Amino acid sequence: MKFYDCRTAPSPRRVRIFIAEKGLEIETIEVDLGSKEQLSSEFKKINPNCTVPVLLLDDGTRYTSTAGIRNYLEALHPTPSLMGENAMERGMVADTQWRIEMEGQVAMAEALRNSAPRMSGRALTGPFDYQQIPALAERGKLRVERFLNGVDSLIGNKAYAAGDFFSIADIDLLVVIDFAKWIKLELPEDAINARRWYEDVSSRESCKL
Amino acid sequence: MKFYDCRTAPSPRRVRIFIAEKGLEIETIEVDLGSKEQLSSEFKKINPNCTVPVLLLDDGTRYTSTAGIRNYLEALHPTPSLMGENAMERGMVADTQWRIEMEGQVAMAEALRNSAPRMSGRALTGPFDYQQIPALAERGKLRVERFLNGVDSLIGNKAYAAGDFFSIADIDLLVVIDFAKWIKLELPEDAINARRWYEDVSSRESCKL
Repeated sequence: MKFYDCRTAPSPRRVRIFIAEKGLEIETIEVDLGSKEQLSSEFKKINPNCTVPVLLLDDGTRYTSTAGIRNYLEALHPTPSLMGENAMERGMVADTQWRIEMEGQVAMAEALRNSAPRMSGRALTGPFDYQQIPALAERGKLRVERFLNGVDSLIGNKAYAAGDFFSIADIDLLVVIDFAKWIKLELPEDAINARRWYEDVSSRESCKL
Repeated sequence: MKFYDCRTAPSPRRVRIFIAEKGLEIETIEVDLGSKEQLSSEFKKINPNCTVPVLLLDDGTRYTSTAGIRNYLEALHPTPSLMGENAMERGMVADTQWRIEMEGQVAMAEALRNSAPRMSGRALTGPFDYQQIPALAERGKLRVERFLNGVDSLIGNKAYAAGDFFSIADIDLLVVIDFAKWIKLELPEDAINARRWYEDVSSRESCKL
């Protein structure tokens, strides 16, 4: 089994933390997005979608999304559970994680990829080039601000994002908040619950990766 | 348990088909998106995010995303499985479904909501108003075309989108293809595998909903 990673990109980090929390040792290969290695003919043989993360199994099966990789590993190594142990937990983790991905991660990617000069012509990941849309960068930034303003009530008096246990919802929320620093956005000063949660989760060994 | 639905919207259909495939009977409440009922103070008590689908449990727990609802119901009623029965299947279903959602469903929503006159000022679902971005409508349409062109190789010689069993990947693919008709896009004429699959899946009783 091989894990194709990139230390500087947010989505591979979502898998990296997951693997560390499970206590798994998986051969890891660094893909250099800075030099556009993901668009090379060599890497396209690994993943025609030209993205990381990728998990390649020994039989040739490959998962080319965070969702695919984490669902596979969760079923293969159920303990510790990172996606919920019963129906209520599984529903709440999936619900919370989906919202964090769509309202946080996607908005943040829109804000960055549609404005950063180095991403000119690369407003979306994948094999096709898309021009930047400045209005989408602006909208993305506004949505990230609103998302960050909502983290305090999302956490509330709970220990973790989806309840009293650490899950993929926490992983993705942490990664979005750190990703938002790239456009100089952060949790509001007075977001006491959110900041208590952030400090706690950030101190986990896995989350230093 | 109550399911908040809307017969004319794509995401609730993804849950409606899922519920029918499971053979469940759940009290269903129609929300009239046409008259913006989802933005009413009454509905905001059900879902502050102002979206359907919603699954409200008797104890007040609510899931406000397709992902949350389906993960909850899958764990509660595992047979027939619609998300895979073992690690390989679960990984493949999640991987395929995620790509269909991000490259098909999201692109299609971008194309429609950023161009349809009736969605002026409502380019995103949710409690906030966002102006349409014409360049995003154009990009969305191009991405949907590319997505539809890729369905034939996605299906290949398999019976279903994620393997030899019907899953949420099939549900979401069907819903995207039908959704694309709204902007007059369809599967290519020569997409033999995709059309064979589409005809087969469309003929299921659940998929007529």
